[in-house]
Amino acid sequence: MLPVFQYVDSHQEEYVQTLRDWVAVESDSSDVLRRPDCHRMMDMTAEKLQAMGGKVELVDIGVQELPDGKTVALPKVVTAQFGSDPSKQTVCVYGHVDVQPAKLEDGWATEPYNLTDINGNLYGRGASDNKAPVLAWIHTVEVYQALNIDLPVNVKFIIEGMEETGSNGLDAMIVAQRDTFFSDVDYIIISDCGWLSRRPALTYGTRGNCYFFAEVEGPKQDLHSGVYGGTVIEPMTDLIGILGDPSGKILIPGIREAVAPLSDEEWKMYQDIEFDIESFKSKIGVSQLMYSNKVDLLAHRWRYPTVTIHGIEGGFSGPGSKTVIPAKVIAKFSIRQVPNMVPAVVKKQVTDYLNSVFAKRKSPNKLKVTMIIGAKPWLADTKHPLYEAGKAAVKRVFNVEPDLIREGGTIPIAKTFEDVTGKSIIMMPIGGFDDGLHSQKEKMSRYNYIEGTKLFIAYLHEVAHLKKD
Amino acid sequence: MLPVFQYVDSHQEEYVQTLRDWVAVESDSSDVLRRPDCHRMMDMTAEKLQAMGGKVELVDIGVQELPDGKTVALPKVVTAQFGSDPSKQTVCVYGHVDVQPAKLEDGWATEPYNLTDINGNLYGRGASDNKAPVLAWIHTVEVYQALNIDLPVNVKFIIEGMEETGSNGLDAMIVAQRDTFFSDVDYIIISDCGWLSRRPALTYGTRGNCYFFAEVEGPKQDLHSGVYGGTVIEPMTDLIGILGDPSGKILIPGIREAVAPLSDEEWKMYQDIEFDIESFKSKIGVSQLMYSNKVDLLAHRWRYPTVTIHGIEGGFSGPGSKTVIPAKVIAKFSIRQVPNMVPAVVKKQVTDYLNSVFAKRKSPNKLKVTMIIGAKPWLADTKHPLYEAGKAAVKRVFNVEPDLIREGGTIPIAKTFEDVTGKSIIMMPIGGFDDGLHSQKEKMSRYNYIEGTKLFIAYLHEVAHLKKD
Repeated sequence: MLPVFQYVDSHQEEYVQTLRDWVAVESDSSDVLRRPDCHRMMDMTAEKLQAMGGKVELVDIGVQELPDGKTVALPKVVTAQFGSDPSKQTVCVYGHVDVQPAKLEDGWATEPYNLTDINGNLYGRGASDNKAPVLAWIHTVEVYQALNIDLPVNVKFIIEGMEETGSNGLDAMIVAQRDTFFSDVDYIIISDCGWLSRRPALTYGTRGNCYFFAEVEGPKQDLHSGVYGGTVIEPMTDLIGILGDPSGKILIPGIREAVAPLSDEEWKMYQDIEFDIESFKSKIGVSQLMYSNKVDLLAHRWRYPTVTIHGIEGGFSGPGSKTVIPAKVIAKFSIRQVPNMVPAVVKKQVTDYLNSVFAKRKSPNKLKVTMIIGAKPWLADTKHPLYEAGKAAVKRVFNVEPDLIREGGTIPIAKTFEDVTGKSIIMMPIGGFDDGLHSQKEKMSRYNYIEGTKLFIAYLHEVAHLKKD
Repeated sequence: MLPVFQYVDSHQEEYVQTLRDWVAVESDSSDVLRRPDCHRMMDMTAEKLQAMGGKVELVDIGVQELPDGKTVALPKVVTAQFGSDPSKQTVCVYGHVDVQPAKLEDGWATEPYNLTDINGNLYGRGASDNKAPVLAWIHTVEVYQALNIDLPVNVKFIIEGMEETGSNGLDAMIVAQRDTFFSDVDYIIISDCGWLSRRPALTYGTRGNCYFFAEVEGPKQDLHSGVYGGTVIEPMTDLIGILGDPSGKILIPGIREAVAPLSDEEWKMYQDIEFDIESFKSKIGVSQLMYSNKVDLLAHRWRYPTVTIHGIEGGFSGPGSKTVIPAKVIAKFSIRQVPNMVPAVVKKQVTDYLNSVFAKRKSPNKLKVTMIIGAKPWLADTKHPLYEAGKAAVKRVFNVEPDLIREGGTIPIAKTFEDVTGKSIIMMPIGGFDDGLHSQKEKMSRYNYIEGTKLFIAYLHEVAHLKKD
């Protein structure tokens, strides 16, 4: 495959420019004011695939209901198809082109929506999560086309624009197209995660995520803290009161009990994984972690639930000072879930627990708990032929065995694909271990972008040799 | 004084237009990006007073140091003088023309910087706090001038632009001008507060304010809560942990012990004050207050310390969801203080307490506690001739006895004026009890603005009859 790989190398600048054009679109799906950018991003994706001769559709998946009762159109889902030879395997690549919020003042060294190359690292929001991996798959098809080589498998794409806020509308669309778009799909490939170290990896599990808003509402408007302090029962005090034991442990009854026990086999797998705690610590800049040994650390990252309080909306969160008693404050927190937790059960457990803690305060304020995202965990069989093909492709491009890893984060759609289509899924990351997803200074290295493209090319070649199910 | 009052009535629209022009300037002193507006506001104030023939100065009070070590110029202080007859009393009116932050999306019904008249209420940020009262004093001088009546007293003004963030630089300026600008001043008048009910009031005390930032810093940048949740000790967890007992009580040793005991006389005064708990509750929209009887409620509003957590900076505080572990979070909280608390002591008590609670957590994160405002409480003698003159002026304009009240909020400069100049101070509010200072929908009613101007005119007349000290 050397000539193919050489072709990829020689088109590096062109690929980087396309990524720059894509990163320039502020497709932040969490901010309704950015929705026009999200629509534009979907259009750009569709146009790109159409220009390559794909059979492309922009699928309307309806509207999103906002907290104030209004609705706003969801970004359409882009589907595309290259090749329909029934004698070949058909893979479906899933990806997303929406991004997390980012502002220069959050602590970026460069403008987050202006892809900036510093020493071979391409900094920009969405560069690694998930625009470059989506483009690497597109380049894969382009390379076969440019070199006049028949695609070894039929390739379908399903690209969405709401992943970062819970893939609103996508589940229903997958269900609706189960017997049409998905009927001839053999395998689903997701490249929306990263390696654990400099060694390439295949991912066989992800945690789910239940994202909650706990809103405490009191006075009908913000009050001056001097004028009213000492007379009103302040919503912020109530909210901090119910955020519970500040130990970082999950106290909610039933949650820990639902977690599948750690098997000996799993323990052994974790032992074998390449993972340097010291470099992990230095990468994130902390002197001490929750656990000091590799197995505990990996296990708590991948297969145990955690709770994170992301922030509080409604209080004074700007720089400087303001002497206000906020009338309504909303804690944003999420619980990463693992087998065998169930989102609907978690929702009830969390809501019941917070309501009971709040009731004890006998506060006149009102508590409202809502779960705005309920994404399931996902787990695959690493001995499936899809994974064997993945190992072979990694071997061919990088000349090493991949790490078999899980992901602490959530790719909500994996479980849905599995449940609805019944197809096998592989996660094949090309993001680097230090890409800074969801944080400041997100980047994609040129190395991972270009070698990742080669990996996908090699992988299609390997998948072509699998027996059809 | 009827012709004078008629003149005021007939110029109402002109006064409202001037207030509109002033409110249109977004002189938010807490936001460094708004500093040019603050400078413009001071220039407008100086120009207005100059056009009236006052002897005006724009006093440079130096620079403000920002958290990043940079400096920015403080808004100049405007001083002005009308009349210098040594046989007359000289009053000095203090006011400020900077405002608290305000954004439409905070929950305003109208654009906060576009003064909007709804049923005789003039809605706009800074309308009541403190632009209309400053203008009412300016109109007072204008009226005397327009009617060719000699001012019964010499009138000086000192108008600042940093009140809302702690009057940075003003203390030093007052000290520097003690023997010049302030040397011939007999009394200082402050009109930066409001009535307690529909009955006019004179204010004889204010609480102080110690405003703190408690910053917990952990990883060197924000992290993805899926990828890192379960491995790092999260700063937000630490911060919420040390915000202490969520009961709303102040647990910090030494604070409650420093509070002056409630005297029988004070208890009796509170009993006599016109204050309707039910309408107070309905005004702020709560079903239950901290205390259910008038004396406890007024006492905890005026003469006991309180703590308010205003918000948390650094977390995700926008609408929607973001799955982030914030790397650095800063709680903003303040403690209103009362006689005989001392800011420097409070600073040490709070810092020591938070450090000791934090140390128990054995967290690898770093805690930094800073007190960014340390404003003293102030208390006056209600039997002083200045207050007797105030009662007479209220009686003349409104035909009632004023309530004698204290203020839960802080007018930091009152204590400085007292300590540095040794002059007597009176607080003569004209703001309504329901003006919504520091909150959404701040307003000044036409009634209070216009009758307040008459009150000031009448007050100068009364002060002229006081014996010179």
